[in-house]
Amino acid sequence: MNAAPFCPGYPPPYDVLAASYPDATVYPPAAFRVEWGPIFHRGRLDGTAKLLVLGQDPAVAETVTRRILVGVAGQRTQGLLARLGLTRSYLMVNTFVYSVYGQAGGNAHIKDEAIAAYRNSWLTTIVSHNDIAAVITLGALAASAYHRWLAAGATFAGHHAAILHPTYPESASAAGQITLADATKRLLANWNEALPGLIAAIAQPDEPASGTPYGTAFIEQDLPPIPPGDLPAGIPEWMRTARNWGTRQGPDAVTKRATIAVTVPAADRPWLTQPTLQPSGRRGAQPGVA
Amino acid sequence: MNAAPFCPGYPPPYDVLAASYPDATVYPPAAFRVEWGPIFHRGRLDGTAKLLVLGQDPAVAETVTRRILVGVAGQRTQGLLARLGLTRSYLMVNTFVYSVYGQAGGNAHIKDEAIAAYRNSWLTTIVSHNDIAAVITLGALAASAYHRWLAAGATFAGHHAAILHPTYPESASAAGQITLADATKRLLANWNEALPGLIAAIAQPDEPASGTPYGTAFIEQDLPPIPPGDLPAGIPEWMRTARNWGTRQGPDAVTKRATIAVTVPAADRPWLTQPTLQPSGRRGAQPGVA
Repeated sequence: MNAAPFCPGYPPPYDVLAASYPDATVYPPAAFRVEWGPIFHRGRLDGTAKLLVLGQDPAVAETVTRRILVGVAGQRTQGLLARLGLTRSYLMVNTFVYSVYGQAGGNAHIKDEAIAAYRNSWLTTIVSHNDIAAVITLGALAASAYHRWLAAGATFAGHHAAILHPTYPESASAAGQITLADATKRLLANWNEALPGLIAAIAQPDEPASGTPYGTAFIEQDLPPIPPGDLPAGIPEWMRTARNWGTRQGPDAVTKRATIAVTVPAADRPWLTQPTLQPSGRRGAQPGVA
Repeated sequence: MNAAPFCPGYPPPYDVLAASYPDATVYPPAAFRVEWGPIFHRGRLDGTAKLLVLGQDPAVAETVTRRILVGVAGQRTQGLLARLGLTRSYLMVNTFVYSVYGQAGGNAHIKDEAIAAYRNSWLTTIVSHNDIAAVITLGALAASAYHRWLAAGATFAGHHAAILHPTYPESASAAGQITLADATKRLLANWNEALPGLIAAIAQPDEPASGTPYGTAFIEQDLPPIPPGDLPAGIPEWMRTARNWGTRQGPDAVTKRATIAVTVPAADRPWLTQPTLQPSGRRGAQPGVA
């Protein structure tokens, strides 16, 4: 038997938000991957969250697991929370509930009123139903979304840490401004600067905060798996790792946008250690007459 | 805005069952696709189910949506329930929580005690917490599982309809015994025979039962979409259709077993009706410094 806690989903007052979300009339399909559906959150919706993380937008792993910050960005964020002594009492939502398509999509729509109104409903509901001591915003768009929420009349007196987005190294180095190694060094220095303020703000973490500063590159201990209790029931363990198990695939832009391939990592194929039955081209045992 | 009800997941007493399920020590990976995780149910877990459907095992669409009977078999089953006047008050579980691999896998393990013990826990919990008037078993293995549950001491006095599995036409015709058209005719005649007994057993359906007999082939009205309230929050609408959006892919048996490709159907690509921004090889807007 396997004993694995799971995310129980969307209780009140979040159920109303998860059942009524902006569609393609609000999020233009030219800039957002609305075809994959919205993805709302990761973490506690039971009133116990002490830290709110505001991310940017979901990627492939998030689309498959239906929870945000699960892939590489999620693993890195999880490692940051571990340094704060948070293994459980956090809640994450994104700036955009749909994945951004193309470089300019997020920037072009960060000021959209209808997008902000829905996002602000989440933020206000969260701070009304939790004792949020600190907010972390990941990247410039999330920081902008946070300030827009305050400007729209929200009251939040806790700490705010505006830090570089966890995949800043990849995006900055791909843009040619900086090497991946140097961008990673810069990211981790930026995160190190944020640690003391966050630790001071969160009076009662789940366990004592280590506050151990990052080095100049990510090491294995910096990337803990996503806790099983953060994902829906039955999600396999390898989907909680950053083993690059999900990719967008296709020979052209249309097919690639329309396709997600999920591949069980080579290390997670239990049937290869046991003899298999004769494989069949068709699925399942043959259903017969009862 | 989009208003879509969603499946709220696993409340007590089902939460314990969904958190503690048989793993590869119970379900041998040679015969079951344990690597994709267990998939538990579809339908009402709030005590309002009047009909229990016992299916066989999850396929690709079920693996992606994490609910059973969603793909072709699910659409056909949904059409059967519609004829019974059931649009909501049903609950479906499977004989096996993991997908069967290879023709013989299901037959070989239908007698396994540990597999049966967990399945029986679900069945007994369901009949203890719902007024189940009837059970439909889909195919021979589900019927066997039902009788094993009774033989193990369960008490259930309601109606039992043992009918052909919804994908019997595909499996029987692929085996060469019968043409697809003839097998479909046989399936629908078999289902027609079951209609009066089921309608008589379910005293208070959600709406008046039509009982309209099937013809000799499936027509469009026989295949209603899966209701949004049966799937997790945010699942896109096209995943509730049988548009063949999920496939196992790969040039060899190992890769094929390890890979599921999900493709947005051509009719459900909203960005093709609007001009897109310059596509980028990388995901999302570029996260910058806040």
